[in-house]
Amino acid sequence: MDSERLVELLQKVRQGKISVAQALGRLRHLPFEDLGFAKVDHHRALRQGFPEVIMGQGKEAKEIAAIVRAMRRRKANILLTRVSSEKMARLKSLTAGLTYHAAAHAATWTGRAVKITGKGTVLVVSAGTSDIPVAEEAALTATVMGNQVERLFDVGVAGIHRLLENRLRLDAASVLIVVAGMEGALPSVVAGLIDKPVIAVPTSVGYGASFNGLSALLGMLNSCAPGVTVVNIDNGFGAGFAASLINRV
Amino acid sequence: MDSERLVELLQKVRQGKISVAQALGRLRHLPFEDLGFAKVDHHRALRQGFPEVIMGQGKEAKEIAAIVRAMRRRKANILLTRVSSEKMARLKSLTAGLTYHAAAHAATWTGRAVKITGKGTVLVVSAGTSDIPVAEEAALTATVMGNQVERLFDVGVAGIHRLLENRLRLDAASVLIVVAGMEGALPSVVAGLIDKPVIAVPTSVGYGASFNGLSALLGMLNSCAPGVTVVNIDNGFGAGFAASLINRV
Amino acid sequence: MDSERLVELLQKVRQGKISVAQALGRLRHLPFEDLGFAKVDHHRALRQGFPEVIMGQGKEAKEIAAIVRAMRRRKANILLTRVSSEKMARLKSLTAGLTYHAAAHAATWTGRAVKITGKGTVLVVSAGTSDIPVAEEAALTATVMGNQVERLFDVGVAGIHRLLENRLRLDAASVLIVVAGMEGALPSVVAGLIDKPVIAVPTSVGYGASFNGLSALLGMLNSCAPGVTVVNIDNGFGAGFAASLINRV
Amino acid sequence: MDSERLVELLQKVRQGKISVAQALGRLRHLPFEDLGFAKVDHHRALRQGFPEVIMGQGKEAKEIAAIVRAMRRRKANILLTRVSSEKMARLKSLTAGLTYHAAAHAATWTGRAVKITGKGTVLVVSAGTSDIPVAEEAALTATVMGNQVERLFDVGVAGIHRLLENRLRLDAASVLIVVAGMEGALPSVVAGLIDKPVIAVPTSVGYGASFNGLSALLGMLNSCAPGVTVVNIDNGFGAGFAASLINRV
Amino acid sequence: MDSERLVELLQKVRQGKISVAQALGRLRHLPFEDLGFAKVDHHRALRQGFPEVIMGQGKEAKEIAAIVRAMRRRKANILLTRVSSEKMARLKSLTAGLTYHAAAHAATWTGRAVKITGKGTVLVVSAGTSDIPVAEEAALTATVMGNQVERLFDVGVAGIHRLLENRLRLDAASVLIVVAGMEGALPSVVAGLIDKPVIAVPTSVGYGASFNGLSALLGMLNSCAPGVTVVNIDNGFGAGFAASLINRV
Amino acid sequence: MDSERLVELLQKVRQGKISVAQALGRLRHLPFEDLGFAKVDHHRALRQGFPEVIMGQGKEAKEIAAIVRAMRRRKANILLTRVSSEKMARLKSLTAGLTYHAAAHAATWTGRAVKITGKGTVLVVSAGTSDIPVAEEAALTATVMGNQVERLFDVGVAGIHRLLENRLRLDAASVLIVVAGMEGALPSVVAGLIDKPVIAVPTSVGYGASFNGLSALLGMLNSCAPGVTVVNIDNGFGAGFAASLINRV
Amino acid sequence: MDSERLVELLQKVRQGKISVAQALGRLRHLPFEDLGFAKVDHHRALRQGFPEVIMGQGKEAKEIAAIVRAMRRRKANILLTRVSSEKMARLKSLTAGLTYHAAAHAATWTGRAVKITGKGTVLVVSAGTSDIPVAEEAALTATVMGNQVERLFDVGVAGIHRLLENRLRLDAASVLIVVAGMEGALPSVVAGLIDKPVIAVPTSVGYGASFNGLSALLGMLNSCAPGVTVVNIDNGFGAGFAASLINRV
Amino acid sequence: MDSERLVELLQKVRQGKISVAQALGRLRHLPFEDLGFAKVDHHRALRQGFPEVIMGQGKEAKEIAAIVRAMRRRKANILLTRVSSEKMARLKSLTAGLTYHAAAHAATWTGRAVKITGKGTVLVVSAGTSDIPVAEEAALTATVMGNQVERLFDVGVAGIHRLLENRLRLDAASVLIVVAGMEGALPSVVAGLIDKPVIAVPTSVGYGASFNGLSALLGMLNSCAPGVTVVNIDNGFGAGFAASLINRV
Repeated sequence: MDSERLVELLQKVRQGKISVAQALGRLRHLPFEDLGFAKVDHHRALRQGFPEVIMGQGKEAKEIAAIVRAMRRRKANILLTRVSSEKMARLKSLTAGLTYHAAAHAATWTGRAVKITGKGTVLVVSAGTSDIPVAEEAALTATVMGNQVERLFDVGVAGIHRLLENRLRLDAASVLIVVAGMEGALPSVVAGLIDKPVIAVPTSVGYGASFNGLSALLGMLNSCAPGVTVVNIDNGFGAGFAASLINRV
Repeated sequence: MDSERLVELLQKVRQGKISVAQALGRLRHLPFEDLGFAKVDHHRALRQGFPEVIMGQGKEAKEIAAIVRAMRRRKANILLTRVSSEKMARLKSLTAGLTYHAAAHAATWTGRAVKITGKGTVLVVSAGTSDIPVAEEAALTATVMGNQVERLFDVGVAGIHRLLENRLRLDAASVLIVVAGMEGALPSVVAGLIDKPVIAVPTSVGYGASFNGLSALLGMLNSCAPGVTVVNIDNGFGAGFAASLINRV
Repeated sequence: MDSERLVELLQKVRQGKISVAQALGRLRHLPFEDLGFAKVDHHRALRQGFPEVIMGQGKEAKEIAAIVRAMRRRKANILLTRVSSEKMARLKSLTAGLTYHAAAHAATWTGRAVKITGKGTVLVVSAGTSDIPVAEEAALTATVMGNQVERLFDVGVAGIHRLLENRLRLDAASVLIVVAGMEGALPSVVAGLIDKPVIAVPTSVGYGASFNGLSALLGMLNSCAPGVTVVNIDNGFGAGFAASLINRV
Repeated sequence: MDSERLVELLQKVRQGKISVAQALGRLRHLPFEDLGFAKVDHHRALRQGFPEVIMGQGKEAKEIAAIVRAMRRRKANILLTRVSSEKMARLKSLTAGLTYHAAAHAATWTGRAVKITGKGTVLVVSAGTSDIPVAEEAALTATVMGNQVERLFDVGVAGIHRLLENRLRLDAASVLIVVAGMEGALPSVVAGLIDKPVIAVPTSVGYGASFNGLSALLGMLNSCAPGVTVVNIDNGFGAGFAASLINRV
Repeated sequence: MDSERLVELLQKVRQGKISVAQALGRLRHLPFEDLGFAKVDHHRALRQGFPEVIMGQGKEAKEIAAIVRAMRRRKANILLTRVSSEKMARLKSLTAGLTYHAAAHAATWTGRAVKITGKGTVLVVSAGTSDIPVAEEAALTATVMGNQVERLFDVGVAGIHRLLENRLRLDAASVLIVVAGMEGALPSVVAGLIDKPVIAVPTSVGYGASFNGLSALLGMLNSCAPGVTVVNIDNGFGAGFAASLINRV
Repeated sequence: MDSERLVELLQKVRQGKISVAQALGRLRHLPFEDLGFAKVDHHRALRQGFPEVIMGQGKEAKEIAAIVRAMRRRKANILLTRVSSEKMARLKSLTAGLTYHAAAHAATWTGRAVKITGKGTVLVVSAGTSDIPVAEEAALTATVMGNQVERLFDVGVAGIHRLLENRLRLDAASVLIVVAGMEGALPSVVAGLIDKPVIAVPTSVGYGASFNGLSALLGMLNSCAPGVTVVNIDNGFGAGFAASLINRV
Repeated sequence: MDSERLVELLQKVRQGKISVAQALGRLRHLPFEDLGFAKVDHHRALRQGFPEVIMGQGKEAKEIAAIVRAMRRRKANILLTRVSSEKMARLKSLTAGLTYHAAAHAATWTGRAVKITGKGTVLVVSAGTSDIPVAEEAALTATVMGNQVERLFDVGVAGIHRLLENRLRLDAASVLIVVAGMEGALPSVVAGLIDKPVIAVPTSVGYGASFNGLSALLGMLNSCAPGVTVVNIDNGFGAGFAASLINRV
Repeated sequence: MDSERLVELLQKVRQGKISVAQALGRLRHLPFEDLGFAKVDHHRALRQGFPEVIMGQGKEAKEIAAIVRAMRRRKANILLTRVSSEKMARLKSLTAGLTYHAAAHAATWTGRAVKITGKGTVLVVSAGTSDIPVAEEAALTATVMGNQVERLFDVGVAGIHRLLENRLRLDAASVLIVVAGMEGALPSVVAGLIDKPVIAVPTSVGYGASFNGLSALLGMLNSCAPGVTVVNIDNGFGAGFAASLINRV
C-alpha cells in the first residue's frame, strides 16, 4: 500500500465516505499496518494455552525467581526447563508454587488447568535409559501444551524386538518424538514402521566418537526413512513444541 | 514360514494330530517367519495414494528406465527426483509417459490422478533464487502426495519486508517448508511469525565458509524459534514427504 | 501504537481536527506503518549510486543476460561478479555494453558515471599473486561504489620488508581491505601498523591443511591485532561493499 | 642504534672524518637499529585517547594488579576485560580506583576523562538476554574509546517486530555492532534494513549443535546481506574497537 | 499377545470352535504379538556364560546398587565398567560381593565361576602406560566372557624393538586387541607381523591435535595393514566383547 | 644379547662344545636374530592361499598390467580392486586372463583354484542398492580368500521386516559383514539379533550431512550393540580380509 | 628511499648544507625507507646457491614461461614444482632448457652447477608407492639446494622388516624426511630408531576417513617419538627446504 | 640371510675356516642380527647426555615420585614436564633433589652437570605473554639437552617493530623455536627474515574460533615461508627436543 492509497483512504474518512471502523478494518488488513495495531502477537501461543517458557540453564535461581514472579502476573502457565534438583531447592526457597518434575529436570506452574487441545496422542519413544531426561523434557512440554502424551522408553535398536512388541502403540500415535543418542538409529526404524510424522531428537549420550551428540545428529539427518525431521541435540523442549504444533494442524 | 505351512500346522491341531502344547512350542520357535503373514506392510504408503519414489542421482538412465517399467506394473504413481535435463532426455528415449518438471529437476508418472488428501495448504517458502530447485522438489513431492501446495519464493531475510508483506499467506498455511542456504536464517523468522509447524531445509547454496550447506544446517538446528524441525541439506523430497504426513495428522 | 490510538487519529481526521497530510505524517512515523507506505527501501543503495549486483557463479550466460537486460531498464549501474572469460564470451554474444575486468573475473555496465562519494582512499592489500583475483574483485566493487581505490599487492608476511617499505601508503588510506590465503597472517601485521579499520578477506589459496581457506579464515578471526573484521572466504565483493559503507560513515 | 650513535656518525661525516661512502656502508648495515628513531609507534592509539587494554581471562588477580599499577604510571586510561565479580573482589583488595561494570564483566580506570571523538553513534544490538555480557563488553569498549553508544537489546529474529519497531534507532546509528548466538541471523536482518557498516559478533550462547558459537559464526560469515563483517566468537572487545576505528574514518 | 491367549486360540481350533481359516486370519493380524513366544532372546548371551554389563559412567552409586541387586536375582555374572575408586567405595557401602579391578576401573560379581569357552588366547597389547586402563577394561571383559587372556603392555612404536622381542607371543594369540592413543600406529605394525584378527582400540590419551582420541581413531581406520577393525575411542569393553565373539567362531 | 655373549657362543662352536644345530637353535631364539633367519614372512598370507592384492584406484592400466605380470610369476592368485569397467577394458588389451567382477568393480586372476579354508559362512549384508559395490568387494575378497560367502542385500532399517524375515540366515553365519551408508544403523540392529562377530562397513552413499560417509562411520563406531567393529569408509576389501582372518581363528 | 637519495643527504651533511640535527630529523622521519639500504635481503637464499622456486599448480603454462624467462635473467637456478606432464609439454613449446623430473612432477633449470653445501646426507623415506611423487619432490628440492640425497621407498609400517633391514642407512643420514599417507605412522617408528631430526610429510594418499591427508597429518603431529616435526599435507618441497636448512646448521 | 647361510657360517667357524672375530663381523652386518648385539639402543640418547623425560600431566605425585626414584638409579638426568606448582609441592614431600622451574611448569634433577654439546644457539621466540609457559618448556628442554639457549619473548606480529628490532639476535641463532597462539603468524614472519630452521609451536592460547589451538596449528602448517616445520599444540618439549637434534647435525 503506497502513500497515495493511504491518502485516499484518509480523505474518504475525512469526507465521511467510510466510517472510522471501516477505515480501521482496512488498515488492519494492509500488509504491514496490521502489524502496527494488532502487533505481531507473541502472546498468540499463550492464548492457545501454551505455557511461557524459561530456559533455566545458565540462569541463577534468583534470576529465575524474578522471571517467574513477573510471568505469574500475566497468568500464563509456566514451563521451566533444565533445572537441576540443587537449583530447584534454592528456587523453592525463593518462590512458591512450582512443581518439580525430576525426571525431566524441569518445573511447571499451572495457574490455569491445561486443556487437551491436541487432536491425537503424542508418543515419546526413547532408545536407552540415559536418554530419558531428554525424552521426559519432550513429554512434559507436550503435556503442558495440551496434548495426550504416552511414553515408550528403552526400546533401542540393539534389541529390536522390544520395539516391535509395541507396534500397536506406535500405530496408535498421531505424532512421534523419537529420542536416541550414540548412533541415533531409532528414528529410522520407527519411521519405517509407521506413516506418521516422526520428530527425531539426538542426545549427547555416548562418549568418544559420539562427539557429544554429533554422531546421533548426523545419523538422524541422514535417515533412510522419509518423514523424519530433526531438532538440536538434547532439545526435548523443541521436539515437544513442534509435536504440539503438528498435533493441532 | 509361509501361509501354507501355518495352515498345515493349524489343521494338524484341529485334527488332533499334534497337541496344543506342541503347536505352541513350534510357533514359539518360529523366529520371525510368522512375520510372513502379519507382514510389515511397505505398501501402506502406496495405498494412501503416495507415489513410489526413485532417487535419480547416481543412477544411469538405463537403470532408471528399468525401475520405472517395473513400478508401472504395480500401478502406483511415480516420483523420480534429481534428474538433470540431460539424463531426462536419454530417459525419454528409453521409456515414455514421464512428465519432466524442470524447475524441480524431477519427473513424475501419474497413472492415477492425485487426490487431495492433505487437510490444509502446504506453503513452500524459499530465501533466494538459487534455492528454488530444492524448494520445487519439496513442492512437487507434496503435490504428488496429495496436498494443496503454494509457493512463496525469494523472500530472504536481508530484505525482510518482502516476507512481511506476505504474512497473510504465511498465516493461511497449515504446514510450512522453509528453504534457505547461506546463513539459513529464514526458518527462524518465519517460525516467529506464525504458530504452525515449520520444516526447515538447508541448501548447499553458498561458498567458502558455507561448507556446502553446513552453515545453513547448523543455523536451522540452532533456531531461536521453537517449532522448527530440520531435514538433510538439499533434501526437498524429505521435507515434502514430512509435510504430507503432518498435513494428514 | 494500538487500535485506540489509531481510532483516535482517524476520528480526528474525520472531524477535520487534523489534515490528511498531518495524519499521513503521523502514520508515516509510527513504528511499522511507515513500512507500509515508505516501504523498506531496497533501492536506497541504488539512489546512493551503488550498483546492482549479480553473482555470476552458478548462472548460465543466458540467465545473466536476461537479468542484465531487466536491470538496465532501471538505469542502475551493474556489477556482475564471478564470471569466467569463457562465460563472458558467451555473454557478450547475448548482450552488449558490458566491460569485462579480467583480473577481477567480473564485468560492469555503467550507464551513469560513477561519482566519488567515499571520503578517503580504500587500499586493497594482498599477500600473494594467487590472491589477486579476490583482491581485484574487492577493488572493483569499491570503485563502482564510488571510492578512490589503491592497490598494494604481493606483500606477504614471509617478506615483511615489502610491506614495511609501503608504510606511508598504509598510513594514507582510510579503510584497508587485506586479502590473504594460506596462514592469513597479513591482516594482523597490517592492523598492527596503522589505526584504521581493516577488513580481512581469507582466500582459498593453498592446499592440504589450508582446507580451502579455513586456515586463513581462522587465522584472521583470531587476529592478535584489534580492529580486524572478517568476511567469508574469497568474498572480495563483500569486503569492497563493507569498505564502501565505512568510507561514508 | 640510538640517536646518539647516529648523531656521532653524522658529525663524523660533517667533519670529514669518514667519507660519504663509509657512512653509507655503515647505515646500510644497520639491520633495523635505525628503527630505533623512526620507531613504529605503538603509543599512537594511546595518544588518540584509546585506553590500554588488559585481557583479564587466564590471569590471576595479583598479576592483573601488577599490570594495572604499571599502566597507571603511563597515565593512560585502562580497560580490563573478562573479569568475574569474584576476581574483581580479590582485585579490589589489591589495587584501588577501578570501576567494575558487572554487566560487561569488565573494569575501567579513567585517569583522564574520555572525550567523545567518534563522529556518530555506535549502536549495539543484541538478540537474546544471554548475549548481553558480550554486547556490554562491546558497548563499554566503544564508550571508553570515545564514542556515543546506544543499546538495543533482546530483539532476536524469532520476534522480528521487536526489531522493526526500532527501525528509526537503527537508521540513526553510524556504526552497528550486532551480537547474537544460536543461529546468528540477526546481523543479516539488520544489515538488510540499513546501509551502515554492521560488525557481527557471534556468541557461544546455545548448546548441542551450536558447537560453542560455531553455528553463529558460520551464519554471520555467510550472511546474505552485504556490508556485514565478523569478529571472533564472544569478542565484544574487538567489535567495540573496530567500531571505534570506523567511527573516526 | 501372551502365551495364554495363543493357547486359547489353539484350543478353539482343536475344539472346532473356530475354523483353520479363522485362526489363520487372527494370527495373520497379530502384528508382532507372536513375537511374544518366538521372542528375540536377549538372554542368549547370558546362557552362553556372558556376564550382564552395567556402564557405571554417569550413574550414581545408588542407582548402580539397585541394578546390581536386580541382576543378582537373575544369577548372571555381572561386569560393571567405568567406576572410579571413589564411586566404588560408596558402592561397597551399599551392596556387598563386588570385586574391584582398580587397573580396569571396573568391578565384577561372579556368582557362577567363569568357564573358559574361548578357543584360543586373547592377547591385549598396549602402546603406552597411559593406555593401560582401557587395555585392562578389554582384558577384564574378555576374561569374564570366558577367554584365556594375556597382556603385552608398553610396546609403543617409538621403541619398536620392545614389540619385536615379543613376536612369539604375538604369533601365539588367536585374537589381538591393540590399544593405543596419540598417533594410534601400533595396530598397523602388529597386524603386519601376524595373520590373526586385530581389534584396534583408540584411546583419548594425548593432548592438542589428538583431539581427544580423534587422531588415534583416524589412524586406525586408515591402517595400511588389512585385517584391522576398530571400535570407539576408549571402548575397551567393546573390544573385549568382540574378541570374545571372534574367539568362539 | 651383547657381543660378549655372541663371541662366547661362537667360540663354543669353534671349540666343538656345542653343535652347529645347537648354536642355530640358540641364535634362532634370540630376541631379534630370529628375525634375521626366519625373516618376517610377508609371504605367509600367500602360502595360506590368500591372493596378492592390487588397489587399482589411482593407478594407470599400464601400471596395473606391469604389476599383474610380475605377480603372476610368483604364481599367487591376484585380487585387483577398484577398477572401473573403462579401465578394465584398457587393461584387457594389455594383459590376458583377468576375470572382471562388474558388481564389485574388481578383477581376479586365479592361477590356483581357491580352496575353502574358512570354517563357517561369511554373510555379507547390505542396506541399500547403492551400497552393493562395496558389499560385492567384501564378498569377492572373502571368496578369493577361501570362504563360503552368502549375500543378503537391500535390507535397510527403514523396512525392518525385510531383515527380520531373514533371521535364520543371520543365525547361520559365522561372521557377518554389514554394509550401510547414510545413518549406518544396520550393524547395530544385526548385532542385536545374533551373537557372532559383526564387521561394519560404512559407505559414502548419501549426500549433504552424510559428509561422504562420516555419518555412517560415526554411527557404526557408536553402535549400542557390542560386538561391532568398524573399518574405513567404503573399505569392502578390508572387511572381507578381516572376516577371512576371523573365519580361521 | 634509495641509495642515491641517502648519498645526497650525506653529501649535504658533509658539505655543511644541512646540519647534523636536520639530517637526523630527516632520517628519523623516514618511516622505513631506511630499509632501502639495510634492505631485508630476499636474495640471501639465492647467494647461498638455493634455487628460485615456482609453484606450478594453478598457473598456466604461459604464465610459468614468463616467470621462468624473468628468473633466468637473474641467473639463479630454478625449481618448478607441481607441473603435470601435460603442462610440461605445453611449457616446453614455450621455453627451452628445462629438465623435467617426471617422478617428482617437477622441472629444473640449472644455469649454475649445484654445489654440495649440505654437510651430511638427506635421506628421504616413504611408506607406500603412492607416496613417491611427494617423496621425489622432497628429494629433488634437497638436491637442487645442494645436498647429498638418498632414497628409501616403500618401507611402510605394515611390513616393518623392510624398514629394519635398512637400519644402517637410517643411521647414516644426517636429516631424514619421512613421507607417509593413510595412518602416517612411519615417522614415529623411524624417529624411535635413530637420533637425528625427522621431518614428517603427510600425504593425501588414502580414501574415506583419511579425509585427504588429515589422518596422516594428525598422526604425525601426535607422534609418540620426540624429534619429529611436521609440514603441510603433500608438501614435499617444504620438507626438502627445511632439511636443507638443517643440513647446514 | 636364511638358516642355510647361517649354518654355513657356523660350520666355517667350527671348521676354523673363519675366525670368531670374522664371524662376529659378518653377523654384525646382517640385516637384523646386528639388532641383536648392538640392540636397538634406547639408551643412546642418554649416553649423549640427554635427560630421561617424564610427562607429569595425568600422573599422581606418588606415581611420579616412584618413577623419579627408579630413574635416579640409572644416573641419568631427569626432565619432568607439565607439573603444576600444587603437584610440585606434594612431590617435594615425597622425593628430594628436584629443582622446580615455575615458568616452564617443569622440574629437573641433574645428577650429572649438563655439558653444552649443541653447536650453536637455540633461540626461543614467543608471541604473547600467555605463550610463555610453552616457550619456557621448550627452552628448558633445550637447556637440559646441552644447548646454549636464548629467549626473545612478547614479539607478536601485531607490533612487528618489536621483532624487527631484534633481527641481529634472530640472525645469530642456529635453530629457532617460535611459539604462538591465536593466528600463529609469527613463525612465517621469522622464517622470512632468516635462513635457519624454524620449529613452530602452536599454543592453545585464544578463545572462540581458536578452537584450542587449531587456528594456530593450521596457520603454521600453511606458512607461506619455507623452512618452517611444526609440532603439536602446546608441545614445547617436542620443539626443544627437535631443536637439540638439529643443533647437533
